[in-house]
Amino acid sequence: MIKRRQLLTSGALVGAAGLAAGCDCGVPAELEGVGAGLEARTLKMVTTWPKDFPGLGTMAERTARFVTEMSGGAMRVQLFAAGELVPAFECFDAVSTGAADLYHGAEYYWVGKSPAFAFFTAVPFGMTAPEIMAWTEFGGGQALWDELSARFNIKPFAAGNTGHQLAGWFKREINSLEDLRGMKIRMPGLGGEVLRRVGASAVALAGGEIYQALQSGAIDGTEWVGPWNDLAFGFHREAKFYYWPGIHEPGAQLGVGVNLDLWNELSLQERAIIRGACHQANHLSIAEYMHHSGTALDQLINDHGVQLRKLPDDVLAALARETRVVLEETARQDDITRRIFESYKASLERSQNWGRISDEAYMSARRSVFTF
Amino acid sequence: MIKRRQLLTSGALVGAAGLAAGCDCGVPAELEGVGAGLEARTLKMVTTWPKDFPGLGTMAERTARFVTEMSGGAMRVQLFAAGELVPAFECFDAVSTGAADLYHGAEYYWVGKSPAFAFFTAVPFGMTAPEIMAWTEFGGGQALWDELSARFNIKPFAAGNTGHQLAGWFKREINSLEDLRGMKIRMPGLGGEVLRRVGASAVALAGGEIYQALQSGAIDGTEWVGPWNDLAFGFHREAKFYYWPGIHEPGAQLGVGVNLDLWNELSLQERAIIRGACHQANHLSIAEYMHHSGTALDQLINDHGVQLRKLPDDVLAALARETRVVLEETARQDDITRRIFESYKASLERSQNWGRISDEAYMSARRSVFTF
Repeated sequence: MIKRRQLLTSGALVGAAGLAAGCDCGVPAELEGVGAGLEARTLKMVTTWPKDFPGLGTMAERTARFVTEMSGGAMRVQLFAAGELVPAFECFDAVSTGAADLYHGAEYYWVGKSPAFAFFTAVPFGMTAPEIMAWTEFGGGQALWDELSARFNIKPFAAGNTGHQLAGWFKREINSLEDLRGMKIRMPGLGGEVLRRVGASAVALAGGEIYQALQSGAIDGTEWVGPWNDLAFGFHREAKFYYWPGIHEPGAQLGVGVNLDLWNELSLQERAIIRGACHQANHLSIAEYMHHSGTALDQLINDHGVQLRKLPDDVLAALARETRVVLEETARQDDITRRIFESYKASLERSQNWGRISDEAYMSARRSVFTF
Repeated sequence: MIKRRQLLTSGALVGAAGLAAGCDCGVPAELEGVGAGLEARTLKMVTTWPKDFPGLGTMAERTARFVTEMSGGAMRVQLFAAGELVPAFECFDAVSTGAADLYHGAEYYWVGKSPAFAFFTAVPFGMTAPEIMAWTEFGGGQALWDELSARFNIKPFAAGNTGHQLAGWFKREINSLEDLRGMKIRMPGLGGEVLRRVGASAVALAGGEIYQALQSGAIDGTEWVGPWNDLAFGFHREAKFYYWPGIHEPGAQLGVGVNLDLWNELSLQERAIIRGACHQANHLSIAEYMHHSGTALDQLINDHGVQLRKLPDDVLAALARETRVVLEETARQDDITRRIFESYKASLERSQNWGRISDEAYMSARRSVFTF
């Protein structure tokens, strides 16, 4: 163990060497004891995503790589795609029990554990990407998420966002609520439940099953993510009409869960590296989805002749009405879900009032008066 | 130097110890040679912000802290607020020459070096926060920014964003373009130039001078940032009307510049830590501005009786017309500015087409049909 000190002529600050165990030189108390070198660890990260899957799988891979890089290889993250170590939907239990150290996934996959998890990914008519970031990081969301996940021995972080997800691909036009009734549509989760309440027949199919179901006519329409991920699946070959806006996942946040026993034994430096990697992944995923969505939308329209259609007002109004009912029912299920719902609502209301006079108004004004 | 290996029973992966110089165990080639321990460095970060200034100063402080924490104290960042080591607008030269190691500031402060720097912060009718992230990280922006900054011996990163900035505070109502003519308004930069072209009298005042100018009647109106930072200055006491949307800085990106000689000698781990800290700061600042803007807007309206007013359509149209002229004039100044402008335009066009059917449409639909 080396201990080295360096007195700078430019000021009173004294820097401690990388391997020093701390010093009495104006270093914040929270940093005392760090810098003593990192313990070598191999961390198993399981994911709910197929290997190399654009945006989702690559976001998990990036998170893993950042931890490894920023720790100089001391915290070596070994990444397992869905099914490699455990099936996608067993990631949560694997991290909870310590069979894996971390997962990268979407929290709403764990609604079987508690319905409250949905709020940390996306709910119908809920938060956009910056809105859920605001709630999570500064609006009380993280503390509630910590409380919820701690019940399962997990420490969670925001680690990605797909941005807005469109309403999806339909074989026939939807000109009124009547047209939606009886349609068979692939939409899982709360969005699917809302569709059922307005008379559609919502089904949950895994990603790999959708194309064939659309091709065979087993379903009349499907949502998936947005232009980037949808183009790769080729849904435009089977369903001509692409409907906007989506209301079911207006900014789906992805998350990392860390085994809580492990988290509790990590040093401040190790925690800072994991948190930093997650937040960097969040930053880059928003950038990546925005960039590729624009590029893919261009291709869908100009190279594939896709027809964009706006959801009719009566459909939006009916979906809104049923969403209120479904969310209220969800919140009634237990105390923590109610508290999370109330916190989410309060934060969304503030962000929405701000968004009305800022981003929404600006995008609308720019579009109507400005082109280069 | 310790070298330790750990064979996991669960798989073929072998983890290298924190101090090992690399191993033959499936570690990506780019990580070979890292993990050999960090050299102790004290890095001087100068900023363009007053000490503890909410959102801006605190974002720089957070960036500095993340580097220190994630390096376990080995890379100890010593932070200097504006004027402590060099005045705000000399940060760029200080990092360029190596008198300081990094700056945290806004790139448009360096337009005296090249007009192209404006595009990496904000231009009128330009990019929102997610849009400039998309361009910077995935749309070709970073490579152009690197090329531009390298001319001054600097390596730049995105490290924050204020989100949308409002049109600002006015003592009198603006009901038409005619009302704006002759008004004395505090607005620096390209936004100020656009205001001058439509007949207003734009002045550039430092933050600390604005309140008194508004109080004395030396100016009729001012923009600053948005509800959070504006509330702290108390402009609502001197000007009752708060105008929206802003068009001058629709998502002002803040940046870190690293001395390029230093950057070139950093290890992969050190670079990953600096980049990670910058991107984490960007993530958190978007969350923070969204959260506090909503909260402060609430207070301004409910506690202080502020009157929100929308800019009239003819004013927006005139500002758009003059913005096109001003940006074209800017782009004509030299080759790199032209290339940066063209890249920016192409990326913005794609993001705007996507935003129209996603975030803008969604926020508008949600507002008209949905309340909890």
